[in-house]
Amino acid sequence: MPEPDEIGIGLMGLGVVGGGVASALLDPESAISRKVGRPVTLRRVLVRDGSKERNPAIPRELLTTNPEDILDDPGIHIVAEVIGGDQPATRYLKDALSSGKNVVTANKEAVAKHGPELMSLAHQNQVSLLFEASVGGGIPIVGCLMNQLLANDIRSIRGIINGTTNFILTRMAQDHSSFEQALSEAQARGYAEADPTNDVDGIDAGYKLSILASLAYHCRFQPDDIYRQGISSLEANDFRYAGELGYAIKPLAIASYSHGAVCARVHPALVPLDHMLAKVDGAYNAVEVEGSLCGNVLFHGMGAGRFPTASAVVGDLIEVARALAGGPSSPPVTFAQHGMASDGTATVGVAPVDDLTSKYYVRLTVADRPGVLAQIANILGDEGISIASVIQKDSDPEQQTAGIVITTHPALESSVQKSLRRVRVLDVVREVNNLLRIED
Amino acid sequence: MPEPDEIGIGLMGLGVVGGGVASALLDPESAISRKVGRPVTLRRVLVRDGSKERNPAIPRELLTTNPEDILDDPGIHIVAEVIGGDQPATRYLKDALSSGKNVVTANKEAVAKHGPELMSLAHQNQVSLLFEASVGGGIPIVGCLMNQLLANDIRSIRGIINGTTNFILTRMAQDHSSFEQALSEAQARGYAEADPTNDVDGIDAGYKLSILASLAYHCRFQPDDIYRQGISSLEANDFRYAGELGYAIKPLAIASYSHGAVCARVHPALVPLDHMLAKVDGAYNAVEVEGSLCGNVLFHGMGAGRFPTASAVVGDLIEVARALAGGPSSPPVTFAQHGMASDGTATVGVAPVDDLTSKYYVRLTVADRPGVLAQIANILGDEGISIASVIQKDSDPEQQTAGIVITTHPALESSVQKSLRRVRVLDVVREVNNLLRIED
Repeated sequence: MPEPDEIGIGLMGLGVVGGGVASALLDPESAISRKVGRPVTLRRVLVRDGSKERNPAIPRELLTTNPEDILDDPGIHIVAEVIGGDQPATRYLKDALSSGKNVVTANKEAVAKHGPELMSLAHQNQVSLLFEASVGGGIPIVGCLMNQLLANDIRSIRGIINGTTNFILTRMAQDHSSFEQALSEAQARGYAEADPTNDVDGIDAGYKLSILASLAYHCRFQPDDIYRQGISSLEANDFRYAGELGYAIKPLAIASYSHGAVCARVHPALVPLDHMLAKVDGAYNAVEVEGSLCGNVLFHGMGAGRFPTASAVVGDLIEVARALAGGPSSPPVTFAQHGMASDGTATVGVAPVDDLTSKYYVRLTVADRPGVLAQIANILGDEGISIASVIQKDSDPEQQTAGIVITTHPALESSVQKSLRRVRVLDVVREVNNLLRIED
Repeated sequence: MPEPDEIGIGLMGLGVVGGGVASALLDPESAISRKVGRPVTLRRVLVRDGSKERNPAIPRELLTTNPEDILDDPGIHIVAEVIGGDQPATRYLKDALSSGKNVVTANKEAVAKHGPELMSLAHQNQVSLLFEASVGGGIPIVGCLMNQLLANDIRSIRGIINGTTNFILTRMAQDHSSFEQALSEAQARGYAEADPTNDVDGIDAGYKLSILASLAYHCRFQPDDIYRQGISSLEANDFRYAGELGYAIKPLAIASYSHGAVCARVHPALVPLDHMLAKVDGAYNAVEVEGSLCGNVLFHGMGAGRFPTASAVVGDLIEVARALAGGPSSPPVTFAQHGMASDGTATVGVAPVDDLTSKYYVRLTVADRPGVLAQIANILGDEGISIASVIQKDSDPEQQTAGIVITTHPALESSVQKSLRRVRVLDVVREVNNLLRIED
């Protein structure tokens, strides 16, 4: 393809992130063209409703409601998709790649669900597909896994990659508020949607983790490969007890390698108070990568929002534009199939969460009478689970119940689950309130 | 150039880092060749003494004491230089580039002092020059400034990029040890050299900061453009008083943009205890980049050592090797001249530290009698410096002296320096023990 004199951008979507991308591209002070070494121009913006008032003021003639206006414009070399969600965005992405456009996307759901198909379309059409903004907002974790950290075998990735749940847990920890109160506050501030399921149940974090794990392990992780536990069962007490044990409770997304397989999971977890991840508060994100050579590298920054996400989208646009201007092209990225690298050699498999070995925190409400602990301890012992600590918490004289918090030494998840099924039906056990994993 | 079937590496230097790079390249389990998509082979290793025993065991036939064996081998496509220091390493780097070899280097001193010349040689010979390992060991800060964060105008970079001084200050803070004691411990553990000047006086951090600032501001910062204050004047008291004020003392390297100019400086500074940088302990490094779009992004990891540095060197090797294998070539990097981008447009200038506006911490030993503070306060007031707090510290009844710690509101560095010159000669002032900047 001949090098274009001027690089044209078609933007699909003009929500919060699209507004940030558009204002960066339209800013006369912006050095984007200079960084690329050639003029970079925003030529078209696909919107759902062309009559809506826009801020920042986008010239009306750039707006269109017809995707063909972008796909058929030979002056548009790169399509930036910031619509989000599966459809129609995925269809637009495929059409753009099939039309020979380079694509930059912030769409975690599309990449997580349809990554291999999109990558293969990019490969067939000899165009680039980049998606830095799909995980971690302004944190350059996607590119670092694709490039700078490539020398490493990745041992684990642990991240706080959903700002909404981190905001909620931070509020619960700091203000002793209930899950419902913290969720309402997050909704009032615009951090959580009216239907918060995607965030609260770990679906959003699951999309992102499937992307990170696929890159880190050169192996395809689909959203369904990821074990998910939501945060809605957490209560103020859990934060208090965790604090007394020296832990914070954070919403983690983890992919960890062990014996040829990777266990990928999204769940709230206890993190030692002096660990960097315990200090990631509010709407911030962080990702810690443990590599065979680099050791632990932590990335911390704004995980979402207009400008941080625009930083990632425009960073990718600059990379593709530089390649078009005769510089380097972006590396072809592939998510290989399970257990199979793109060259056909074997890679890692996906480990079920049942095979996980972890330390655990269990909170129970039990009858407040002698001998209860012995019954529970017997079951745990039966299942090969060794108890690290037991703390008896608040008694409720009226109900004649007491709270108990048990922490374990490293134990097999399936054994813990099995023992809890047995504990749950004990006469003396009123409720198993929470089971959390401890990430030391 | 035709694509080679096999990519040959010539390694120059086999110290701590070279050993890590060699063992990564020689590891039969390593996936480097698979990641590149073509065999990657270590063909030659330049050493000073060919008879020395090596660990890891490098095949004897790979060793040579003659750089020509690498420069003249047409099967070597990439030279990895990990000798360090200005000469002879810089000469080898130039020879390698002039011979049409791609170059990966960990050499901060060579890049800081001779970067533009090396880049121009790379450009002339159409080869790549990468130097991720020159700053921050296993932290991918160099590549992120070159690539992923490019959409941003960089407002500031604040980093802890010298592990030796961070180790020393961490020990002083935690064990209340003196500078001399902490330095001895660092030397005993191999973190500090017998002559620690390069680390303690900020020369090493200055090299690294000149590289980061040159990349961030697309402008050439030479080591001499960087203001340096060493750490040897710090005393146990400073850590105690800083702690009482809510600060840690950390060895920072800072480049901050203001009104068209960048002030670059290496000095110990007070950092709020709850700031991420305050929590970077021991031999860890961290760099926080504030960008116009991304906001604050922090990178944290092992800043030095065999394997973290090898992670960066081998990451660069993979990037260049992929390009040779028909993938993307690395972007050409240039450090433009002061105030001038590579396309001739104006960029930033270098601001002298005198123009810095900062909050300050001053510790003085004064005569323990009434009216002393008034004299000092008068001088500060004269110079337009507003006092934020004054704490009288330990009196010494024998010497009839007292310690005073003054913190200021934001003030101009030149005014602070001028007022201290006046304070120092006051009758009642025994000593100005320390002047530190506060980074809020």
